Amino acid sequence: MSSFALEKTDTGTRARIGTFSTDHGPVETPVFMPVGTQATVKTLTTEDLDRCGARIILGNTYHLYLRPGPDLIQEAGGLHRFMSWHRPILTDSGGFQIYSLAELRKITNDGVRFQSHIDGSAHFFTPESVVDIQRALGSDIMMVLDECAPYPCTFEEALSAMTRSMSWAERSLHHFTGTENRYEHRQAIFGIIQGSIYPELRVNHAKGLIDYDFDGYAIGGLAVGEPKEALRRIVDCCTSILPADKPRYLMGVGKPEDLLEAIAMGVDMFDCVIPTRNGRKGTAYTRQGKLILKNSANQNDFNPIDADCPCYTCRNHTRAYLRHLFQAGEILGMRLVSLHNIQFYIDLMRQARIQIHTGTFTEWKKAMNMIYPWSESTESE
Amino acid sequence: MSSFALEKTDTGTRARIGTFSTDHGPVETPVFMPVGTQATVKTLTTEDLDRCGARIILGNTYHLYLRPGPDLIQEAGGLHRFMSWHRPILTDSGGFQIYSLAELRKITNDGVRFQSHIDGSAHFFTPESVVDIQRALGSDIMMVLDECAPYPCTFEEALSAMTRSMSWAERSLHHFTGTENRYEHRQAIFGIIQGSIYPELRVNHAKGLIDYDFDGYAIGGLAVGEPKEALRRIVDCCTSILPADKPRYLMGVGKPEDLLEAIAMGVDMFDCVIPTRNGRKGTAYTRQGKLILKNSANQNDFNPIDADCPCYTCRNHTRAYLRHLFQAGEILGMRLVSLHNIQFYIDLMRQARIQIHTGTFTEWKKAMNMIYPWSESTESE
Repeated sequence: MSSFALEKTDTGTRARIGTFSTDHGPVETPVFMPVGTQATVKTLTTEDLDRCGARIILGNTYHLYLRPGPDLIQEAGGLHRFMSWHRPILTDSGGFQIYSLAELRKITNDGVRFQSHIDGSAHFFTPESVVDIQRALGSDIMMVLDECAPYPCTFEEALSAMTRSMSWAERSLHHFTGTENRYEHRQAIFGIIQGSIYPELRVNHAKGLIDYDFDGYAIGGLAVGEPKEALRRIVDCCTSILPADKPRYLMGVGKPEDLLEAIAMGVDMFDCVIPTRNGRKGTAYTRQGKLILKNSANQNDFNPIDADCPCYTCRNHTRAYLRHLFQAGEILGMRLVSLHNIQFYIDLMRQARIQIHTGTFTEWKKAMNMIYPWSESTESE
Repeated sequence: MSSFALEKTDTGTRARIGTFSTDHGPVETPVFMPVGTQATVKTLTTEDLDRCGARIILGNTYHLYLRPGPDLIQEAGGLHRFMSWHRPILTDSGGFQIYSLAELRKITNDGVRFQSHIDGSAHFFTPESVVDIQRALGSDIMMVLDECAPYPCTFEEALSAMTRSMSWAERSLHHFTGTENRYEHRQAIFGIIQGSIYPELRVNHAKGLIDYDFDGYAIGGLAVGEPKEALRRIVDCCTSILPADKPRYLMGVGKPEDLLEAIAMGVDMFDCVIPTRNGRKGTAYTRQGKLILKNSANQNDFNPIDADCPCYTCRNHTRAYLRHLFQAGEILGMRLVSLHNIQFYIDLMRQARIQIHTGTFTEWKKAMNMIYPWSESTESE
């Protein structure tokens, strides 16, 4: 029985609404997953997230493995109990963090040897050990270990990373089906499509993964510096061949305009540090565009960030106050703007679902693009 | 009409319960006022404070004057509206910050010239200008500008600072009564007793201030490094002669044991950065003593900081999780422990009020001192 129920596909685009069922509750898609790297979405409590309407969050296997470690989290009763978040959690596989953070990594067909970015200690991940770690974390959705090719890379390099990722996906699934759940709730497993910016590799990898009937399919290895045009092309070719009855997850993307574009191509799930990272820097997302709170224009602006936003920050605080907090270096500023930005992203997805439901997605996206324009000439991050 | 109603004085000690009335609501004493230095109690929202049971907070005139400035706060509708805290606020006079933070300060009978610790810019405070600033801030209780003598200092130095503080108190009150309220709510004004560790100066200053019939009396210039024995002696001699029908406020003090000791001598009001500053370092106060969350003993301790504490942190999170947050450098740890510590201080005062009410204060204090012992041999901070 599939955990995903597709409810409607837009007529003008390939945008879709659906529900992914987990034992920690349903996840309506399209969905944005706030990033809880180290068992916390930075500066926010799980109560904050719940109030913003977050229904699933992401945890980073690489970070949690290094600190506090899967044994401790299992002893705590799993990641949900450890961090006191009782809705669904997706954990990534660590593949991207090994690529972007770890030092002295050495990849063989067996697995990947790397040094911790924290203390230089040596570690070894295999597809099997990464499943085991995620069994200990007890996430509702786990991801297979993959090899993320750098950008730019040659066709041969991309082919090599893709081939290894395919083999690892197979081993991951084999180990997943051969191991016991450690908690009362179900765990799902998603495959990850690699292949850099080469459509033929992506299609090849996607087809290979589809044969294994994963619970969902992620598009990985993007938002690593490639042009936006390449991002679109790759997402397009992946979603074109992925089965309609499984969720599609675009990893690590992105800005509001990226999410809109990907939704139109049939992507269902997103995660990104942008709302929290930018929030900590004092950049807020609004229905009128980005707002740099430190700008002197906000000095005596006694309006909220966004008058129509239901978040705690907008109901209680002015731009002038928030600017003051950033000028004074107060942590509360980071917290309040992170909260607002998460609310913005969650609401953007909620709006997308409503618009798809009512058949007005194309018009709505067009209006949103007036404020958050998609430009092929920029780089994705 | 006095704003303070004394309700009961303990028989075994001089501890008292009372209520200070403001237009933003009543303040039951003894009371602890969390310190909102720069229009925020660090890491916490005003909702957090309200949930902890905070009923009055402190704002720092020196900090708010420098940033964002009294004009902006007045334009925002006062400090309450600026920071979205709708209960009482007490603002200090800046005297202590000029003493402890500002550079190149030069004190004359007219006022004090100093350089900002932020950008070195030159400023001049007079007793009158400080009243004006607090008129703009719109605090419910304002403090007179005082000169805080360093510790140690000679009798002559202490006499000089005290004499000037007395003259400034007179000018402050004169200016206060001669200026209009800028908001709908009433403002009260408290005098501050100086005189370092010399009882005769303290008594002299207290008597001088009492003649002016301030709304309350603060004991200033303590917790600057003097021995605890001196702190007790000075508090004792001040509360002995202060009128019973006015609140007594011990500025900048202190640890739980200091508050208990001062309450027993008849002090009603306290403020201190200890619960928030220590909270940000990972030190928590509990009914069983101080807890250093980073200690390895907490690594797999899945109990809350304090099982009997009603705060959000204790209802939702374990010591193991909090330790992890500090190990990982996550801001959420600072926030959660600050919240808990504020709750602890608020509850300590609530307990003190209950014990005074039921006539069991002495026994309760004795039991509390088993955990938080008062020692005359240490220095106050």
